[in-house]
Amino acid sequence: MNQSCDIAVKVENRPFVELVPVKLPAPSLGDNTADLDRLTRTLSQSGFSPVRLAPGRMDEVVRKIRALGLSFRTVLGYAATHWEILDVVEASGDRPLFGFAVDLGSTTLVLRLIDILRRKIVEETAVKNPQVKWGEDILSRILFARSREGLGELRACLIEACSKAMEKMMKDCGVAARSVHALCCAGNTAMSHFFWGLDPSNICREPYIPAANTFPTVHASELGFDFLPASLLYLFPNVGAYVGGDIVSGVVAADLNRSEQTRMLIDVGTNAEVVVGNRQWLLACAGAAGPALEGGVVERGMQAVSGAIDRVRIDRQTGEPDFGVVGSAKAAGICGSGLIELVAEMFSSKILTIQGKFTELPCSRFRDTPDGRAYALALSSQTVDGQEILVSEIDIGVFLKSKAAMYTILSVICRKVGLNFADLEKIYIAGAFGNHIDPEMAVRIGMIPDLPLDTYHGVGNSSLSGASMLLCDRTLLTEVETVRNMITYVELNVNVELINEFRGAQFIPHTDPRLFPSVQSP
Amino acid sequence: MNQSCDIAVKVENRPFVELVPVKLPAPSLGDNTADLDRLTRTLSQSGFSPVRLAPGRMDEVVRKIRALGLSFRTVLGYAATHWEILDVVEASGDRPLFGFAVDLGSTTLVLRLIDILRRKIVEETAVKNPQVKWGEDILSRILFARSREGLGELRACLIEACSKAMEKMMKDCGVAARSVHALCCAGNTAMSHFFWGLDPSNICREPYIPAANTFPTVHASELGFDFLPASLLYLFPNVGAYVGGDIVSGVVAADLNRSEQTRMLIDVGTNAEVVVGNRQWLLACAGAAGPALEGGVVERGMQAVSGAIDRVRIDRQTGEPDFGVVGSAKAAGICGSGLIELVAEMFSSKILTIQGKFTELPCSRFRDTPDGRAYALALSSQTVDGQEILVSEIDIGVFLKSKAAMYTILSVICRKVGLNFADLEKIYIAGAFGNHIDPEMAVRIGMIPDLPLDTYHGVGNSSLSGASMLLCDRTLLTEVETVRNMITYVELNVNVELINEFRGAQFIPHTDPRLFPSVQSP
Repeated sequence: MNQSCDIAVKVENRPFVELVPVKLPAPSLGDNTADLDRLTRTLSQSGFSPVRLAPGRMDEVVRKIRALGLSFRTVLGYAATHWEILDVVEASGDRPLFGFAVDLGSTTLVLRLIDILRRKIVEETAVKNPQVKWGEDILSRILFARSREGLGELRACLIEACSKAMEKMMKDCGVAARSVHALCCAGNTAMSHFFWGLDPSNICREPYIPAANTFPTVHASELGFDFLPASLLYLFPNVGAYVGGDIVSGVVAADLNRSEQTRMLIDVGTNAEVVVGNRQWLLACAGAAGPALEGGVVERGMQAVSGAIDRVRIDRQTGEPDFGVVGSAKAAGICGSGLIELVAEMFSSKILTIQGKFTELPCSRFRDTPDGRAYALALSSQTVDGQEILVSEIDIGVFLKSKAAMYTILSVICRKVGLNFADLEKIYIAGAFGNHIDPEMAVRIGMIPDLPLDTYHGVGNSSLSGASMLLCDRTLLTEVETVRNMITYVELNVNVELINEFRGAQFIPHTDPRLFPSVQSP
Repeated sequence: MNQSCDIAVKVENRPFVELVPVKLPAPSLGDNTADLDRLTRTLSQSGFSPVRLAPGRMDEVVRKIRALGLSFRTVLGYAATHWEILDVVEASGDRPLFGFAVDLGSTTLVLRLIDILRRKIVEETAVKNPQVKWGEDILSRILFARSREGLGELRACLIEACSKAMEKMMKDCGVAARSVHALCCAGNTAMSHFFWGLDPSNICREPYIPAANTFPTVHASELGFDFLPASLLYLFPNVGAYVGGDIVSGVVAADLNRSEQTRMLIDVGTNAEVVVGNRQWLLACAGAAGPALEGGVVERGMQAVSGAIDRVRIDRQTGEPDFGVVGSAKAAGICGSGLIELVAEMFSSKILTIQGKFTELPCSRFRDTPDGRAYALALSSQTVDGQEILVSEIDIGVFLKSKAAMYTILSVICRKVGLNFADLEKIYIAGAFGNHIDPEMAVRIGMIPDLPLDTYHGVGNSSLSGASMLLCDRTLLTEVETVRNMITYVELNVNVELINEFRGAQFIPHTDPRLFPSVQSP
């Protein structure tokens, strides 16, 4: 599929990889500079200096230079400290440069094949992170990676999964390996460690010191992408154990660090990570708000993939639900945004109390189960497996804890810097979740602050966006460094104040109704 | 064997690899800089910046840092544009850093294991260059290397031969692979191409353009030395097709570029290469004077190894010879310096005419052979194979052409810059040949100019000396660049003048006796 370009770039013509025309002076008895030195000298005169060429690439490049004659184009990759000669190609003709942007998610790997010079997304694919077999949660994987063998296995399967996905995308789109010149990856700190083959064990031990936060730009083959002989690899730097390259990438994509007004980025993945700030300061914190919001904890919960109920409306009179399913006629489960809408609608329909308990209203959808009462969101005729999709009070309790955690994180981080929610000009919601969520519903249940709805902007996978943008605009590397140095990480200390805040936020929308003036009591 | 140090260094404490003590600030919740970033920052504060660490080394280094605690030493290699972190080791205790200096000769590979910090040669070994099986002469190998497969084979056997020799030396001397941190190599331009895996075919085609004259400092493993995981590799740069890194290394070792007085370096290997100059200018030329001088063309010729006759005296009355053999009781052949002495002594004993023909003097050593008359230098009882070692008029003719070529090269290069031989303050003679030659004998036959004998200095393998010195003194890298930029290569155009010069020089000592006033007519 050829999607239209959604890669916003700020500066013209500064891609991560360039196609630089070169005209070499003819060698002669009077100027017997060697082929590669001649190329280096010529590039240097055009402002590309210093340049390097990997030992393993030299012979091929020299032979090509000899075959091409004195006029050709050089594919130059930008490695911050130098330019890397990746290839030489014929002097004219269409020669697209491709790159991959990769979001190294702990659950899902999302890859984009990008036509760098045209700033076009050629193809996008999501695949499961195969590391899941060593544990859904990142902690089990970190423990497994303590041994070199364990780390080696985790790394190998990650590289293999990325490689396979890339090779399939290249095949589908007819892109040759020699035309791929950049890999731009972002992940959280643990994923970055797995990707690079670094012991992550100290990430989760006080004082939470990663093995590395910054990574040199290297040849893709150095990290095992042997099928990409002419490609650089860039991995976004981490800020620390809890703020990874994915967040840095997201902040750069959302341009938080250049905004005059104070803005917020909420990235809901397996964890919830929040960054707030403006051009003068950036504050980040993270919390375990995510799993239930992604549908991961609720019994029939699932991610927002085919079969997931993501839209729910409930008839105020009858209590009968109407719902939408992602890409399918029948439902298999319910995803995060579906849960938000379900709870909001149940509350508005008086099926749920402010405490999140079922009311005594008569409703044909109530069921008695061994786990207590439940609400049948989908009937057996509407589901993939012929089983009703039931949501119990327990499920709702778990979900309300997650939404409360989210609201608490937002409250605490704002209080840390003496801000009111109303001071936030924009709030970006990233993650698969952010794309599906209806802010009105989320406000109604008290998950996010009661602000004008146009304050909220779903920005999709902002980590992937940042990586895509960097491929097309290398000047963002400066922004990356700025963001990395600006972000201060705030530890959310568990204290009495926080616990009280959290308790109040578990109600619908909150124990303090003044915080949600727009939410009408049903 | 523990030889005493012969590595002259000009600057104290600037080795190619350093052992840098590091004391890291303790990580804390307030300073959660990652392990590697902490190391990089600390090194940078000590003046080592920028530093790099290869992706494949990172995990091992981090794990070691964690095991060593906050105080340890870093093994840093100097890569000109940056410092390379090669390893981290315990904070105290004897920790020698080893390196190999390698002379990549087209016939012989000579390797030295060096204790870098003590500036001691631990062991030296010479092995045959296995590429000889594709041709003694470099031209056959260049032709063979035109195909990638051919080049691959030539390179592989070279790397393998070096590796085997190194591994044996390390085993013999009890040096672990992880203690070897530098490989410093020098070879002629073709050998440098084979070593790096570069197509050499344009070296011997007008306008004689090498693929590369300069090479980045890389990890030894990048060139296939996988058994040296913590070692940098430096290859001396070439000046051009005919002046290789071995000559640059030799000039640096001989310090020609810093001499107030004009000096000359003659390197007699498979070719004869000559550099003349001082701190203001350097001129180089090369010619095919070598093979006969190394004993390579004469029928019973051989290199100066065990069994080679290298000293000859002939009784002026009887014409009976007395000779010395390298490391053996019986003779197997005659080497270059032996030939020089034989011809000089035959001339002084009136066995040879000024034209290099046998005289009619009665002599029991003359033999009649199918190839004409010959002189029996060694009797059957004195040789390894029980065959007399005969030197024919044809052999002598070949040899005289070589010595004439040598003298002609020296004449021409001096004339190019308007110098008389007497203007040369010192003449260094390098190569195995240089170590064995007796200047008085070489003057007597008119191979080298008739100058005071203390003008001549045998300097052995000057290419290997330069490589050894660089391991112990990285400031010589500046000298290398200076030399490379200073040297002007002079093509010896074959013209009438040169041919006349060459013809005159084929006599003993010369057709013009005024050029050799010290040589008495016998």
